[in-house]
Amino acid sequence: MFESAELGHKTDKDEYDAIEPVLRADLLDAQYDLLDLKQFAVVVLINGIDGAGKGETVNLLNEWMDPRHIQAWAFDEPTSEEAERPFMWRFWRALPPKGKIGVLFNNWYAGPIRERVERVSKRAAFDQRLEEIRRFEAMLVREGVLLIKFWFHLSKAGQKKRLKDLEKDERTRWRVTERDWRFYESYDRYHDVAGHALRQTSSGEAPWMIVDGSDPRFRAVFVGRALLTALRKRLDVVQRGWAPRQTAAPLPPAVDRLNLLNTLVLRQEMERKAYEDQLERYQGKLALLTREPAFHKRSLVLVFEGADAAGKGGAIRRVSAALDARQYRIVPIAAPSEEEQAQPYLWRFWRHLPRQGKVLVFDRSWYGRVLVERVEGYCSEADWMRAYAEINDFEDQLVVAGAVVVKFWLAISQDEQLARFKEREAEPHKRFKITEEDWRNRDKWDAYAQAVCDMVDRTSTEIAPWTLVEADNKYYARIKVLRTICEQLTRALA
Amino acid sequence: MFESAELGHKTDKDEYDAIEPVLRADLLDAQYDLLDLKQFAVVVLINGIDGAGKGETVNLLNEWMDPRHIQAWAFDEPTSEEAERPFMWRFWRALPPKGKIGVLFNNWYAGPIRERVERVSKRAAFDQRLEEIRRFEAMLVREGVLLIKFWFHLSKAGQKKRLKDLEKDERTRWRVTERDWRFYESYDRYHDVAGHALRQTSSGEAPWMIVDGSDPRFRAVFVGRALLTALRKRLDVVQRGWAPRQTAAPLPPAVDRLNLLNTLVLRQEMERKAYEDQLERYQGKLALLTREPAFHKRSLVLVFEGADAAGKGGAIRRVSAALDARQYRIVPIAAPSEEEQAQPYLWRFWRHLPRQGKVLVFDRSWYGRVLVERVEGYCSEADWMRAYAEINDFEDQLVVAGAVVVKFWLAISQDEQLARFKEREAEPHKRFKITEEDWRNRDKWDAYAQAVCDMVDRTSTEIAPWTLVEADNKYYARIKVLRTICEQLTRALA
Repeated sequence: MFESAELGHKTDKDEYDAIEPVLRADLLDAQYDLLDLKQFAVVVLINGIDGAGKGETVNLLNEWMDPRHIQAWAFDEPTSEEAERPFMWRFWRALPPKGKIGVLFNNWYAGPIRERVERVSKRAAFDQRLEEIRRFEAMLVREGVLLIKFWFHLSKAGQKKRLKDLEKDERTRWRVTERDWRFYESYDRYHDVAGHALRQTSSGEAPWMIVDGSDPRFRAVFVGRALLTALRKRLDVVQRGWAPRQTAAPLPPAVDRLNLLNTLVLRQEMERKAYEDQLERYQGKLALLTREPAFHKRSLVLVFEGADAAGKGGAIRRVSAALDARQYRIVPIAAPSEEEQAQPYLWRFWRHLPRQGKVLVFDRSWYGRVLVERVEGYCSEADWMRAYAEINDFEDQLVVAGAVVVKFWLAISQDEQLARFKEREAEPHKRFKITEEDWRNRDKWDAYAQAVCDMVDRTSTEIAPWTLVEADNKYYARIKVLRTICEQLTRALA
Repeated sequence: MFESAELGHKTDKDEYDAIEPVLRADLLDAQYDLLDLKQFAVVVLINGIDGAGKGETVNLLNEWMDPRHIQAWAFDEPTSEEAERPFMWRFWRALPPKGKIGVLFNNWYAGPIRERVERVSKRAAFDQRLEEIRRFEAMLVREGVLLIKFWFHLSKAGQKKRLKDLEKDERTRWRVTERDWRFYESYDRYHDVAGHALRQTSSGEAPWMIVDGSDPRFRAVFVGRALLTALRKRLDVVQRGWAPRQTAAPLPPAVDRLNLLNTLVLRQEMERKAYEDQLERYQGKLALLTREPAFHKRSLVLVFEGADAAGKGGAIRRVSAALDARQYRIVPIAAPSEEEQAQPYLWRFWRHLPRQGKVLVFDRSWYGRVLVERVEGYCSEADWMRAYAEINDFEDQLVVAGAVVVKFWLAISQDEQLARFKEREAEPHKRFKITEEDWRNRDKWDAYAQAVCDMVDRTSTEIAPWTLVEADNKYYARIKVLRTICEQLTRALA
C-alpha cells in the first residue's frame, strides 16, 4: 500500500511559491461553488502517523480557504453521551451539511487500528469492523457525500529523525513523550495493520491517498491539489446537471399474487374483557422489565409502521402508559426539516438515538424510504434498493450497542380502513386524523402491499425481526404488540 | 407559600369519573390547536417532593393527550458534555419547539434547592441563582413560551404515611431507601428552602401552582384543569390575532451627534513590515496561550461584529491561523434555520457552545438582535430593548462556566467602506462578497451607528467588555484584535 505511493519527494521553495497562490485561489473558488450549489457535502478524513503533518496541513487548508465553512472535528475518547450510543453515533453527529467541508481527524479508523495494534481485538473482529466501515462509507458516497481519505505517512527512519530533531531543540523537547517512543518501537506492526486496513477500505469511489509527510511543502501541495481535483470533478458533474444515481433493475412482479400480507387473517377475535385483563397483565410486565437493573445498560427501540388508520397511535399509547414518562420518548416521523435534508438519509434517525436505560418509540421510521418514498417516487429506485442493506447495517449497530429493536407492521384490510376513515370523519375529535392525502394513499393499496412484503423479506433479520400484527381488531393488535415487546425484552435481558 | 394552597382536598370516584372524559377531550383539543398554530411552545415544570405523584401525573397527561407531541425530560447528574458547559446549557437543549409541550422534571430548580438544603451553598449564593432563574424565565415568557410551574406538595405527616404504607407492602418495600428516610428527617428545612425559592420566583406571568399530592384523583384533576386553562387562555389570545409584545418608550435621540464611533480615529498607521513582525509575535503568543494546561479547563468565545467589508473575515483568519484546527470552530451567523426559528432567540447560540479547551469564533452573533433586527425592524422595539439584559445574562453564564468572552466591533468609515465595495466588485475573487443588500445597508449608516453605540453602552460589561477596533487600516485592525485576545487570555489564565 505505502510502497506504491509517491514517497521521498520534495518541493523546493521557488516551485512552492509559484504554485501556492494559484492553488489557493482555485481552492477558494471551488469552495464557494460548493457553498452556492449546496448539492453535496465534503468529508475529508485525516489519518496516519503523528508527526506526519496532519494538523499543519489542515491549518493550511483553513488558511487557504474560507475557514467559516470548514468544520474540523477531532475525536478523542468518547464522552459519556457518546459512549452510551452505537460506535458510529459520534461520527454521524459530526457530518457536515451540504455545501460545507468537514475535516475529521482520528475518525472511525483510529479506534479499530489502535486496538488491533495493541492486540485488544483479534484479526477476525478487526476485519469485521473494516467491513462495516466499508459499507458505511459506501452509503455516504451513494448519499452524494464527496469522501476524500488522506493517510499521512512517514518511514520508520523518517519518524526516528523527527523525534531526534524535536529532542535536540530545547524549545520542542517537551513535545516528545514516552508514548511517542513506544509507538516508534511498534512501527512495523502499526505499518502492517494500517496497510491491511487501507487495502480493505480503498474503493474506486473513495480511494485512500497516501501523503508523504516528510516534506512540508510537498505534502501541502499534494493535499491541496488532491482536494481541488476531487472537488472540481464533482462540481463539474453537478453543474452539468448531475444524475447521481444509477437505476437498478426493476423488481420482478409477484406471479401468484400471494404474499405475506394477504395470507394473514387480519381480523382476530378478542373480547373487551379479555383485552382489559391482558392489557393490565402485559403493561405490568413491561413496567417491571424496564425497571430491571439489567435494563439500565440496554435500551429499547420500537418501530411502528402500518397503513393510515391501522392503529399505530393507539398501540403506542398502550405501550407508553406502562412506562415512566421520564424514561421514554416518542418520535413522530414527518417530512424532514431543512437541517435534516442537508444530511444523509439516516442522519435524522441517528440524532434521536437513546441513552442507556431509555425507550425510544418511532411512530413511522427509516422504513419510510422503502415504503412511502418508494411508492410515491420521492427517491430513485437505486436509492430505495440500497436502503435495505443500509437499514440492516444501521439496526445491527443499534443491537451491538445494546439496544433491543422491535419492529411492528400493523396490517389492516381495505374494508376496515374505509370503515375507520368514515368513522373519523363523523367524529369531531378525530377529524384532524384524516386528510385528503389519506384518501389518495388508498388508491395505491397494491403498490404499498408490494413494498411492505419486500421490506419484511429483506429487513426481517435475526437480530431485529419484523412482527406482523393482524390489526382489524384493535384489542387483539394492542395485546400482540405488548406481548411481543415483553417477550423480546425478556429474552434480551435473560 | 404552601399554606395558601388548596391542601387536603379529595376527589371522590364518581366525581372523577364525571370530570375525566370531558377534561381529557378538552386537553386533546387544545393540544391539537397548539400543534396547528405552531405559534408558541409550552414548558411545564414538574418539581416538588418525591412521592407526591410527579411521575404518575405526567404519565396521566401523556395518556390523556397525544404523547407524540409531548417531550418529557428528566435531569439527573450532568453528563460530561453538559458539565463542561454553562449550568443552563442542558435545559436549553431540552426546550420544546413551537407547537409542542415539553415537560421538565427536576429542572433548573432541583440543583440550587438541593445544594441549599444540604448547605453546600450559602443563602446569598442561593438568592443569586434564584434571581438568575427569575430572569431566565422572564426571557422565556417574553419569547412567547407558555411557562407552567407545578410544585407537588405533601405534608410531613403525609410523607411519613406514604413511606410506612410502601414499607408495609411486600411488593413495594424495595422502593423505600435510606435516602428517603434521611430526606424525611430534613423535611422542615426542605420546606423552608423550597418555600423561599417559590416566593422568589413566582411572577404574574409564571406563577407557581402548588399541587396537593396526597389524593391521586384530586391532583390529576387539578393539574389537568390548570394546564387546560392556561393553554386555552393563550390559544384564545393567539387565535384572535395576538400582539405579543408591548412597545417600550423610544430611545431619546442623541443631541450632540457625538458618539463612541465618530470620536474614534478610524485610520491608524501601520506599515506592512511592522504588521508582519507583530502578526508573527501575537500569533505565536496566542498559540502558546491556547496550549497552556490552564486553558484545558477554560474556553474562549470570540465575537466579531462590524459593518459590511469591515474586515471581520480577514481578522478571523489571522486568529484561526494561530490555532490548532482541532481546537477551534467558526460559526458564521446567517438567517436562522427552521428548527432555530421554532425556539427562543438565544437558542441557536447556546447550541454551539464549546467544550473546555476549545475556541469558538462567532462571525456575527447574538448582537444581531440589537443591530440588524433593530434597524431593519425584524423584531419589535420591546424585543431588542430587553435583549440587552438578556445578552448580559447569557454572557455572564458563559463567564461563570469558565469561558473568556472577547467581543470586537470593527469600525470603518463610510468612505473606506465604499472604496472596499468598489474594489470587491472589480475583483473576480471577491465578487461573491458584495450583494445588493450591502448597498442598501449603506443607506442606513446613521441608524446602524446609533444601534452600535447603544449596544456598546449597554453590553460592555466588566466580565465581557467590547473592544472597538479602528479598522480603516486592515493591518492595524488585525493586530489590535490579536493583541486584545492575548491580553485578555493572559489575564484570565493568570
